[in-house]
Amino acid sequence: MVSIDLNADLGEGFGPWTMGDDAAMMDVVTTANIACGGHAGDPEVMFASLRAAAARGIVAGAHPGYADPAGFGRRVIPMSPDEIGRMIVAQVGALQGVAALAGVRLRHVKAHGALANLAAGRAEIAAAVAQAVRALPGDLALLAISGTALESEGRRAGLDVVSEVFADRAYLANGQLVPRSEAGAVLHDPEEVAARILRFVETGRMPVLGGGEVALAGQSVCVHGDSPGAVEMARVLRARLEAAGVEIRPFAGG
Amino acid sequence: MVSIDLNADLGEGFGPWTMGDDAAMMDVVTTANIACGGHAGDPEVMFASLRAAAARGIVAGAHPGYADPAGFGRRVIPMSPDEIGRMIVAQVGALQGVAALAGVRLRHVKAHGALANLAAGRAEIAAAVAQAVRALPGDLALLAISGTALESEGRRAGLDVVSEVFADRAYLANGQLVPRSEAGAVLHDPEEVAARILRFVETGRMPVLGGGEVALAGQSVCVHGDSPGAVEMARVLRARLEAAGVEIRPFAGG
Amino acid sequence: MVSIDLNADLGEGFGPWTMGDDAAMMDVVTTANIACGGHAGDPEVMFASLRAAAARGIVAGAHPGYADPAGFGRRVIPMSPDEIGRMIVAQVGALQGVAALAGVRLRHVKAHGALANLAAGRAEIAAAVAQAVRALPGDLALLAISGTALESEGRRAGLDVVSEVFADRAYLANGQLVPRSEAGAVLHDPEEVAARILRFVETGRMPVLGGGEVALAGQSVCVHGDSPGAVEMARVLRARLEAAGVEIRPFAGG
Amino acid sequence: MVSIDLNADLGEGFGPWTMGDDAAMMDVVTTANIACGGHAGDPEVMFASLRAAAARGIVAGAHPGYADPAGFGRRVIPMSPDEIGRMIVAQVGALQGVAALAGVRLRHVKAHGALANLAAGRAEIAAAVAQAVRALPGDLALLAISGTALESEGRRAGLDVVSEVFADRAYLANGQLVPRSEAGAVLHDPEEVAARILRFVETGRMPVLGGGEVALAGQSVCVHGDSPGAVEMARVLRARLEAAGVEIRPFAGG
Repeated sequence: MVSIDLNADLGEGFGPWTMGDDAAMMDVVTTANIACGGHAGDPEVMFASLRAAAARGIVAGAHPGYADPAGFGRRVIPMSPDEIGRMIVAQVGALQGVAALAGVRLRHVKAHGALANLAAGRAEIAAAVAQAVRALPGDLALLAISGTALESEGRRAGLDVVSEVFADRAYLANGQLVPRSEAGAVLHDPEEVAARILRFVETGRMPVLGGGEVALAGQSVCVHGDSPGAVEMARVLRARLEAAGVEIRPFAGG
Repeated sequence: MVSIDLNADLGEGFGPWTMGDDAAMMDVVTTANIACGGHAGDPEVMFASLRAAAARGIVAGAHPGYADPAGFGRRVIPMSPDEIGRMIVAQVGALQGVAALAGVRLRHVKAHGALANLAAGRAEIAAAVAQAVRALPGDLALLAISGTALESEGRRAGLDVVSEVFADRAYLANGQLVPRSEAGAVLHDPEEVAARILRFVETGRMPVLGGGEVALAGQSVCVHGDSPGAVEMARVLRARLEAAGVEIRPFAGG
Repeated sequence: MVSIDLNADLGEGFGPWTMGDDAAMMDVVTTANIACGGHAGDPEVMFASLRAAAARGIVAGAHPGYADPAGFGRRVIPMSPDEIGRMIVAQVGALQGVAALAGVRLRHVKAHGALANLAAGRAEIAAAVAQAVRALPGDLALLAISGTALESEGRRAGLDVVSEVFADRAYLANGQLVPRSEAGAVLHDPEEVAARILRFVETGRMPVLGGGEVALAGQSVCVHGDSPGAVEMARVLRARLEAAGVEIRPFAGG
Repeated sequence: MVSIDLNADLGEGFGPWTMGDDAAMMDVVTTANIACGGHAGDPEVMFASLRAAAARGIVAGAHPGYADPAGFGRRVIPMSPDEIGRMIVAQVGALQGVAALAGVRLRHVKAHGALANLAAGRAEIAAAVAQAVRALPGDLALLAISGTALESEGRRAGLDVVSEVFADRAYLANGQLVPRSEAGAVLHDPEEVAARILRFVETGRMPVLGGGEVALAGQSVCVHGDSPGAVEMARVLRARLEAAGVEIRPFAGG
């Protein structure tokens, strides 16, 4: 049977503030990328998120980002590759510490926001991210956007790399995402999203903006957690995939 | 031969700011308690401090404190014992992550400032600190002030507890520190400090303010790192101890 | 005609995070207490909140609190009265700066959370708050909980003091709030709240938990902004007051 | 008699951390640019710095920068011009609030670090800075690097613009600073610095790297506060200027 993982970025609250409906999203996805106190998250949010993931039996991993909560990790903060590596091990290490207390094992790392974008396109940043993940204990996998420098640098570093595609983003003929600044970059219709991802899961080919398809590697589909309608889109996606006989299961574990 | 460990709180800079002369102090002590990004420290400072400790072959451990850099961890932030435990594992985990990248093994945890004071006197806080340290990987020892609740709760939790005495603080007949608010609480004369600690190392008895002595357990002596004259006091202490045939070596390793 | 002011704490988001439904609440209240970047708020949130208040013609003031966003200003951070005063002028000054750019005049200051509680009961803290408000330009009024030390110290400092009562809190026979830790401290039924406040506005007497009434001064009623149902409770309260012929108007301006 | 102002960036500590020797530098300069809690500074540091400036009768102004203490305001944080403007009024407003409590009048604003560099070269950023300063009360002057977009946009906005030159930086034939990345960009010899600035003050012409001179406007000379030898360089500069009959006095007041 064909299978796929659904992942979402969760645990992105801070102090008194929440982001999205984590409890509802955790009922839909199979993998949770949990913020580590950089762009979002604090020890309380981390612990609660890890426990909530464990209670549902879903996979938990770390979601480090620029230490810029005011910008939610969506701004590029000028840092050298070495500085980025040190920031990542500190953040993932923090979540590993909380996970040890929560009795949860982290399985992977996925970069957030502007850091993920930078690591997607620039090899020296991607290499720094990969080396940081490799230096950490726990045999952490790297969840990387399909077709990026991070994917190839992760493999070069000897990491278990899991490629992801985005449920609600349009693609170019070269397999890259349509930039958010362009019309049609973001998809809003849950049924359209479900149909596209079902096609991708069954064939390995993703529809291209303007027509045609592109072959993509992808063992996980990212569903976003922080926009209105995010949970509903994820639910429809999961329902349509399951109805078509696709097994929804985490990329990690067994 | 009689031996003793000398420990200091280091890595307490943040961003562009430094605190004390870490390089000079690391040439004197055998154990470095390194801030974890809570009351002080950031990934850059952590990494540099760990590397500096490793370059000198001294023991490195974590020095978590209230996440209150404006107050330098010297203010009690109202938190439940569970919240304190989660804060500690996040901070120590962060330093463990950086240590993994730096190729350094952390050997112990020592609480900082107001957190250390609270854990010294209140069993439920001490138990939370001990449980947090115990939950973390790496067989971390607990460096605790001699005669405190943290020492006993650490032992109760099955931790390897190392007791410390303070080089520059006066003691009461019950083995407790003279509160800083009282006259004579802090010692400033390096030779007096050295004579007291030598006496303690050789006999296990510490002079008491007002006369007499008290028996204290102590495998490590804390020398402060952030006051004027701190490095000079530590140098004199080490020189006098060595001249008397005391071996200065870390409590951990071998 | 009898009149009353309705105030709410608003602008309590930070970066990507929001708190409550400010737009809806601003349609109901006549006075907005806007966070200043201490317990919540940042220049973007401040500016947007001030503009939103101005667009509705409601009064805007400053809502300073402990600079502890992780604790949302609900934890007492150990600070001297002088330190508290300097923190307040920095926060209110920041909002005044943004208000100048937004073309809005601030009319008052209301302390937040743990700072308000401390200033309610301790004269030296209340005096520090009052002196800080008095030092600032702009003839700022002080919005203080009825019957507190802050109210009296504000008057002693020569400030225009506006007393507030809480819509959803039960009162003791001495005019103090029933502590939140006690049963019945918080009211949840909008109609009951409306009836109580209507009675208070018309008679100056507030129902007391367990029976009877107490005379209270109060020119403003605080409706909370960050709990579920807060907007609905505020709407019912306003509707019932208006239906009874009470004029809802800000305490300031005219 | 010819006169010139000497300015320095001060009050750049944070919490327990200090930066440079402010007390010594305040004895040399006539104008203090005080950090506002963005790249550095907190209410305690602001208050102490303002009082120290007032005690010496020197002019105090605001020194806003990116709200990035970890990077000390030396990294460009991606922000729109409007966001920059709102950040500046919040920071300067905070210092104005503290100044009101300290009984000190702020006279000017000088941008810090990466923000100053960006405003020097990009007109839309410069205009945002100028509009922010103009929106604030207090008739604040703008202290801007000579020959920059900020200088011209400040004048266009109707501000009182004071141009500054740098004591320890080499200049190009077009009047721009030699970039720090180039050899010879920074001068280290106090006597050479003093000779250059004396020449400039007397003639309005600054030596150019590689030979020749360039005419520059400049009513203030910036002496740096946070490098080793900074105070000594400033003292030598002041002594040589005074010995040559140049009056050292603030650009503002009188």
